Amino acid sequence: MKIKAIAFDADDTLWDCQSYFDGVEAQYVSRLLDYGTPEEIKAALFKTESANMSALGYGCKAFTLSMIENAVQMSDAGIPASTIAEIVTLGKSLLNIPATPLPGVEQTLAHLYRHTPYQLAVFTKGELLDQENKLQRSGLTRYFHATHIVSDKTPEAFRSLCDSLKIEPQELLMVGNSLRSDIIPALEIGAHAVHIPFHTTWQYETAEDFSNDNLITIHQFSELLQICT
Amino acid sequence: MKIKAIAFDADDTLWDCQSYFDGVEAQYVSRLLDYGTPEEIKAALFKTESANMSALGYGCKAFTLSMIENAVQMSDAGIPASTIAEIVTLGKSLLNIPATPLPGVEQTLAHLYRHTPYQLAVFTKGELLDQENKLQRSGLTRYFHATHIVSDKTPEAFRSLCDSLKIEPQELLMVGNSLRSDIIPALEIGAHAVHIPFHTTWQYETAEDFSNDNLITIHQFSELLQICT
Repeated sequence: MKIKAIAFDADDTLWDCQSYFDGVEAQYVSRLLDYGTPEEIKAALFKTESANMSALGYGCKAFTLSMIENAVQMSDAGIPASTIAEIVTLGKSLLNIPATPLPGVEQTLAHLYRHTPYQLAVFTKGELLDQENKLQRSGLTRYFHATHIVSDKTPEAFRSLCDSLKIEPQELLMVGNSLRSDIIPALEIGAHAVHIPFHTTWQYETAEDFSNDNLITIHQFSELLQICT
Repeated sequence: MKIKAIAFDADDTLWDCQSYFDGVEAQYVSRLLDYGTPEEIKAALFKTESANMSALGYGCKAFTLSMIENAVQMSDAGIPASTIAEIVTLGKSLLNIPATPLPGVEQTLAHLYRHTPYQLAVFTKGELLDQENKLQRSGLTRYFHATHIVSDKTPEAFRSLCDSLKIEPQELLMVGNSLRSDIIPALEIGAHAVHIPFHTTWQYETAEDFSNDNLITIHQFSELLQICT
């Protein structure tokens, strides 16, 4: 493969994010136990999130609004406002997750930045300000030549990324944890992909495992150095 | 002036947006009258919005979360969940405003697109998906060579816009309704600006009137043709 640019997913690839969402969901469930079993609450929340996706998109604010909407629905509008306030606080806590780089991430990016000719880009979906703030807090900004935050990682979004990096799709290597968002659309446009599974995946992002000539799966971020140098 | 690109603000420049926010705020106030006068409710909401700005940013989802948070606070957590549900519905209605082009907008853009050499860009702040959806609904996408949605219109964001359009700041003409977001930062980086005041302005966007050699104020969008052709 003849790669000119490496694009990195952010949440759950560069830093842990999903664990915090899972933690908030667990807290949320504990506050709604009067209205359903944990399984029922999680299933109803997921349904509300999915229904809201086309209007609210991905991210903490969308998730918080879905939690509130679902709490009102499941309780037949019986939930106390004090619990709503707790849900708002829980949701807003996700806007301040530490975004500490996962093991090996910073050293690997630093090496790629200093010792290889690749353009390095962040390519992430979600809410603009939140993603910018997390990148800032991670301390990783210095290693990236470009940051692209999109509402969804469609094949068109991958093509625009290539245009903006002035490369052909087959010159792009996408690195990420989500088969659905990072790997499948990258392969679809003819790019290369490295899949690094994260220990927990949001239900919305799950996809069947599969193999492809342009896909490599690794289990440590630092293994990238063996592929790219 | 030697202009190579014209960047347009979207909300309240290409289409009406603030009137819908004002309408939702009026509905919101009417539901909280047990907890304060209209003036008190509006002032408290504005305070909550301003406090949330650095984490939530601009846009409908941020506004909706601030409305909910403020309603819980003002009612000392006494507000019924059914009213919270109404607030969520009100907030979500803002994600579906028609985004009908304001008078003269479509004809003017069509003329600029077909008969002038300028690059035309949308340069707007807020929530990614919502801004994309509005642009789509407006039917104006076809007239723009580029769309840039940013979390805030800082001078740095204007410089990045120029980089991305491959022009110098003095070759940019920014067109918008907000002195604070569209005009002042554009002038600060040495760009030209056209101010088209809208009949209603969000308190957060208000700024003192002022004059500048690089600033022209017009009152009809179509007057742009006299300036740019």
